[in-house]
Amino acid sequence: MKALYFNGERIELRADYPKPKRRSGEALIRVRYAGICGTDLEILRGYTGFKGVLGHEFVGVVEDSDDKELIGKRVVGEINIGCGECEFCKKGLEKHCINRLALGIRGKDGAFAEYLTLPEKNLHIVPDEVSDLEAVFTEPLAAAYEIPNQIPLKPSWRALLLGDGRLGQLIAQVLRYCVDLIVVGRHRRKLELLKKLGINALTMDELDQSMKFDLVVDATGNPDAMMEAVKLVKPMGFLVLKTTTAKPSRIPLSEIVVNEIRLIGSRCGPFKPALRALKENLVKVDYMIDEVYPIERWEEAFEKAMNRETLKIILKT
Amino acid sequence: MKALYFNGERIELRADYPKPKRRSGEALIRVRYAGICGTDLEILRGYTGFKGVLGHEFVGVVEDSDDKELIGKRVVGEINIGCGECEFCKKGLEKHCINRLALGIRGKDGAFAEYLTLPEKNLHIVPDEVSDLEAVFTEPLAAAYEIPNQIPLKPSWRALLLGDGRLGQLIAQVLRYCVDLIVVGRHRRKLELLKKLGINALTMDELDQSMKFDLVVDATGNPDAMMEAVKLVKPMGFLVLKTTTAKPSRIPLSEIVVNEIRLIGSRCGPFKPALRALKENLVKVDYMIDEVYPIERWEEAFEKAMNRETLKIILKT
Repeated sequence: MKALYFNGERIELRADYPKPKRRSGEALIRVRYAGICGTDLEILRGYTGFKGVLGHEFVGVVEDSDDKELIGKRVVGEINIGCGECEFCKKGLEKHCINRLALGIRGKDGAFAEYLTLPEKNLHIVPDEVSDLEAVFTEPLAAAYEIPNQIPLKPSWRALLLGDGRLGQLIAQVLRYCVDLIVVGRHRRKLELLKKLGINALTMDELDQSMKFDLVVDATGNPDAMMEAVKLVKPMGFLVLKTTTAKPSRIPLSEIVVNEIRLIGSRCGPFKPALRALKENLVKVDYMIDEVYPIERWEEAFEKAMNRETLKIILKT
Repeated sequence: MKALYFNGERIELRADYPKPKRRSGEALIRVRYAGICGTDLEILRGYTGFKGVLGHEFVGVVEDSDDKELIGKRVVGEINIGCGECEFCKKGLEKHCINRLALGIRGKDGAFAEYLTLPEKNLHIVPDEVSDLEAVFTEPLAAAYEIPNQIPLKPSWRALLLGDGRLGQLIAQVLRYCVDLIVVGRHRRKLELLKKLGINALTMDELDQSMKFDLVVDATGNPDAMMEAVKLVKPMGFLVLKTTTAKPSRIPLSEIVVNEIRLIGSRCGPFKPALRALKENLVKVDYMIDEVYPIERWEEAFEKAMNRETLKIILKT
């Protein structure tokens, strides 16, 4: 089958990559579309040391599985595969299993290919109301829903989201239902897109510098943003980190202690609310798609995805 | 009156420092004993820019107050004085008032003097069962009780406390009742004192490096401890910071995000449980007192307090 293989140094399109064989409990899925995510770009920079087929945001159709009800169904899939035995797996928290595999990220071939396999229990059937291209956003939208999943947000809270990128656009749309939100970004076009959704979006220069927030979310992708972000949190407020990069960050330790700030790391989230939001049109994603490329044009696709003005690039596999 | 005044560069003992005048709502307190704390030593290094009488851990007797019931009573006092008007003061969180004063730390003369004033509502009467010298530990012990005040600790948790110093000894004694605790420190004598209390105390070399903890508390006073501390926290675990220094710290951002670690700054805490623990002898403090100096011998006292082998030095005022 066709697959985009990352050999640890560069991507290559393989025409004859072996089609994955499903194991017991797994489904074989024909991938339709897969999104290029910031994490994929970080992997290309050596973030995880992964070698294999990239890609973890996808929609596809089940071709074979133990559960015959699933065959022919359109699905999206949670990307973490746990050992099943450890304290985290036993609590349903496979994403924190120390021996986990992660689709297209860690020890498991991903979605930039014609086929992939995943445990059946990782799959969610896509409602008819959600298009294929919309469904590709389920995984990053779930990561946005991880924030209200971790923190008991209050509607009276004033919140600041730093970052107007791929993930920022989704987090903004989730948080606007939960808190009084301001988004600060650096890209005129991306801020305009948020404004069109009725979201209060500014540049840092436009922000009233005396304001403090109950919640600050860092989705900048920039490890240096922390020094500023901490100063924008109210005492006893929350600072949520979504930025993953290999580079360590400096933080003003004494401000965190004196103001008793709660700094929360946040990664993958729940698929169910994400699919419900897409089905009920609570979150818009179509406007974020800059272009859909056939997998053969992967070089153009990745080049475009790396452009800082781009929001979402999708591959048709 | 006699007072130890910090002029921004050095301490001087003043024999004729003006006795403070109590305002309406305040009590005038004759200080009996006051403890030298790590924060005092940080202030001498320029941590807060404070000038005035140092000292915030004290026990004394009320000489005058609006509330006549208080006169003659032995008291300890919460150190933060809020504006009374802001959102934090209205919630009883004066310690986070942006315009707060803090006894011996910020805009308010402290306890290394014959007299101090504090709002009556900041005072707690010391039970008869608690000696003067024990009562001096109420403030730092309250800071230890801030940890279970902030985080819903579970008895099944495995916890690691980094730091065997003044604050570490108190935190260890509080946490041993809440969680399965290991303390890691650098000072043979201080570790031995913890062991005498039946607390599991080790050097870092003796710690099983494969262990991960539901809760890690950093009370090292060393901003560089963070890089290691993060690695010892389980996924979704808590990392509590007690270290306050002016120097920023480096943290491995991606480990916090990927493992969804919750990093919590922790400062002053509740006095009531601290006094109850002293009264009921749940926490021992006497063994921590290395020496009690009359205020006239403040130079010896501070020199001894700065020695890394010292635990607690107390001034008699």
